Amino acid sequence: MAELTISEVYKAAEVLQNVARHPKLIGVTKLNPEAQVYLKPENLQYTGSFKLRGAYYKISQLSPEEKERGVVACSAGNHAQGVALGATHNGIKSIICLPAGAPLSKIEATKALGAEVCLVPGVYDDAYRKALELQQEKGYTLVHPFDDPLVIAGQGTIGLEIIQDMPDVDAVIVPVGGGGLISGVAFAIKTIKPNVKVYGVQAEGAPSMVQSLAEGSRVTLSEVSTIADGIAVKEPGINTYELCRKYVDEIVTVSDDEVAAAILTLIEQQKLVAEGAGAVSVAAAMFNKVPIKGKKVVCIVSGGNIDVTSLNRVITRGLVKNGRDCTISLTMSDKPGQLSKVCSVVGNLGANILSVEHKRNSTNTQISGCKLHMEVETLNHEHILLIKQGLRDAGFTVDD
Amino acid sequence: MAELTISEVYKAAEVLQNVARHPKLIGVTKLNPEAQVYLKPENLQYTGSFKLRGAYYKISQLSPEEKERGVVACSAGNHAQGVALGATHNGIKSIICLPAGAPLSKIEATKALGAEVCLVPGVYDDAYRKALELQQEKGYTLVHPFDDPLVIAGQGTIGLEIIQDMPDVDAVIVPVGGGGLISGVAFAIKTIKPNVKVYGVQAEGAPSMVQSLAEGSRVTLSEVSTIADGIAVKEPGINTYELCRKYVDEIVTVSDDEVAAAILTLIEQQKLVAEGAGAVSVAAAMFNKVPIKGKKVVCIVSGGNIDVTSLNRVITRGLVKNGRDCTISLTMSDKPGQLSKVCSVVGNLGANILSVEHKRNSTNTQISGCKLHMEVETLNHEHILLIKQGLRDAGFTVDD
Repeated sequence: MAELTISEVYKAAEVLQNVARHPKLIGVTKLNPEAQVYLKPENLQYTGSFKLRGAYYKISQLSPEEKERGVVACSAGNHAQGVALGATHNGIKSIICLPAGAPLSKIEATKALGAEVCLVPGVYDDAYRKALELQQEKGYTLVHPFDDPLVIAGQGTIGLEIIQDMPDVDAVIVPVGGGGLISGVAFAIKTIKPNVKVYGVQAEGAPSMVQSLAEGSRVTLSEVSTIADGIAVKEPGINTYELCRKYVDEIVTVSDDEVAAAILTLIEQQKLVAEGAGAVSVAAAMFNKVPIKGKKVVCIVSGGNIDVTSLNRVITRGLVKNGRDCTISLTMSDKPGQLSKVCSVVGNLGANILSVEHKRNSTNTQISGCKLHMEVETLNHEHILLIKQGLRDAGFTVDD
Repeated sequence: MAELTISEVYKAAEVLQNVARHPKLIGVTKLNPEAQVYLKPENLQYTGSFKLRGAYYKISQLSPEEKERGVVACSAGNHAQGVALGATHNGIKSIICLPAGAPLSKIEATKALGAEVCLVPGVYDDAYRKALELQQEKGYTLVHPFDDPLVIAGQGTIGLEIIQDMPDVDAVIVPVGGGGLISGVAFAIKTIKPNVKVYGVQAEGAPSMVQSLAEGSRVTLSEVSTIADGIAVKEPGINTYELCRKYVDEIVTVSDDEVAAAILTLIEQQKLVAEGAGAVSVAAAMFNKVPIKGKKVVCIVSGGNIDVTSLNRVITRGLVKNGRDCTISLTMSDKPGQLSKVCSVVGNLGANILSVEHKRNSTNTQISGCKLHMEVETLNHEHILLIKQGLRDAGFTVDD
């Protein structure tokens, strides 16, 4: 590839000046009491994600002939919207190949930004093949979601903004899928301020860059599975792998439950909606996955395009992870007054019963006993233990 | 009361300079295509609501003796957190009276900000009486949530910021409960730029200020009911009523469904979490409740403290209101292949079936027929009509 240069990143910043928003850092006090944590909220970016930056810059640099022919991209998500907006702004035709099962909301959002949507039967890989076909047949330029120096330079502008807004930052935490964002950010930051640490975060269920760096060569995962679908990438890029090897201090992973807890925390404490991929950086800071004690740290919240129908499931999962919602199961003898006694113990300990399932004929209980399952709203994990102990002290057999 | 002056509002702005955030206006293109709409996102304010401004300013102006004794307030929500933070910052003791059934999350948030929480058995009115008692007995200063000139001056700083950030604004749309926010904003804006329109918005289920203005005197509602619980106020303040009468152009109402649709739109398009009270201004702009065609309009999104467990219900309601989720019921003959035919009609029209309930023994159907209820993910209201027509064309009897 063409070598990435810092002047390319500065050039991208200039091109993007009146196109992309420059979201201000937001200080968050309660996220990790041992560090000074700030958010770079790229979920507030136009199209709801940082992807606009790289896609727009790439498209702006096409030759007049390439612009004339148009661009093609494959994505079910943020990249699609970035390319669509970038192309439309530049007066260029864009075709986005999507797997036919993509969410209606994403299809509509992409169309609304002026792209032509090509629904391809099958999965992502099929849609990608179709995009390559169109590139060959029609001469469209393929805008790669991450493995392109110009796309990477565009994402790098986030690094410039962080250094500009907080010159004394100690560390930056960045979500990693294919690696475009972290490559640009790490390159820009390490070039300007080599002492600033740059950490990456992947989902446990999609650790392609982590494994690649560990093995010393690009690894292709056979499958990926995570709620952070925006970074569920099977294989790093050629360019991004090299840049991460050279410029990134460490890449760690977080679990889906940790991601859910981070999304919930952003909603409740910051009133910000992040998608799973956007919240992995926050999860890493919350759960001390990287060494930030005593440091001034910026977490890039890379995007906010989460399907509203999955938001509810994520919220519930986050409540459970944070000890704010739990199911307590216990066995009680089948005689009057028992349920009332249980409720009174739970209520006196300051918890709120959300639902009760009272089963008499469970195969796991004695003839004279019955099983009770309660969903309880609680304060934290210690509170749950206290309630279980309270129930045991009152004579009930509580499941662990 | 002491007369409200514009210099008081400027003084409040000075006091709040290093205390309150000054959230930048956010331009939103799709909300209402006929107007230029901007948001003033006070949900991104510390404590998640504008209430901090008034409470903090009021507390900062107490005499040394009053500060020594401490403050008391009654609120289950945003005012509680504003008072707690304001008092703690000023090194003052604060007692917040809450009805005992208040959500755990709000109780904890108030405690975390340094307040002493006094849980009072009963409802809001009981907690308020307790606060008055404490004021009498202990000499605490009661910080009223809205009907106090200093509180109103603090809220008025939002008006100053809007004029400063957008000198050519045509109209401002403001949520109205007790009237503290709109009184301050309208007073500040009309004093500086009398030609800027100031519109208020109440919930249909709690129109106390609307009715009071219509009747020419303060009305007390016997009950209020709305998902916008932050503005579910039975009676306007004495000061706020007078200020609204004098400075506000018009106050309109929005339905709960419109509020839900606005909350959903803010989540999906802006990645911002608003509470019901915070979103009524956006609902008014979306559903053309005020004359904004061709105008440059700022909607104040006053807060974001919505209980995560109610967020899901609101999202579902918003999806239905916007035609993105609907239940289609139809009667079909009880023979093989019918369900498959229904699914194929729906699928071919680009909708996504979320759930199916297939009942054979409904009392409303013929012996040989059966009833089908489908929850379907759709694009908009026109799309729903199209699908129903498609099913009718295929020979099914579809309920309206």
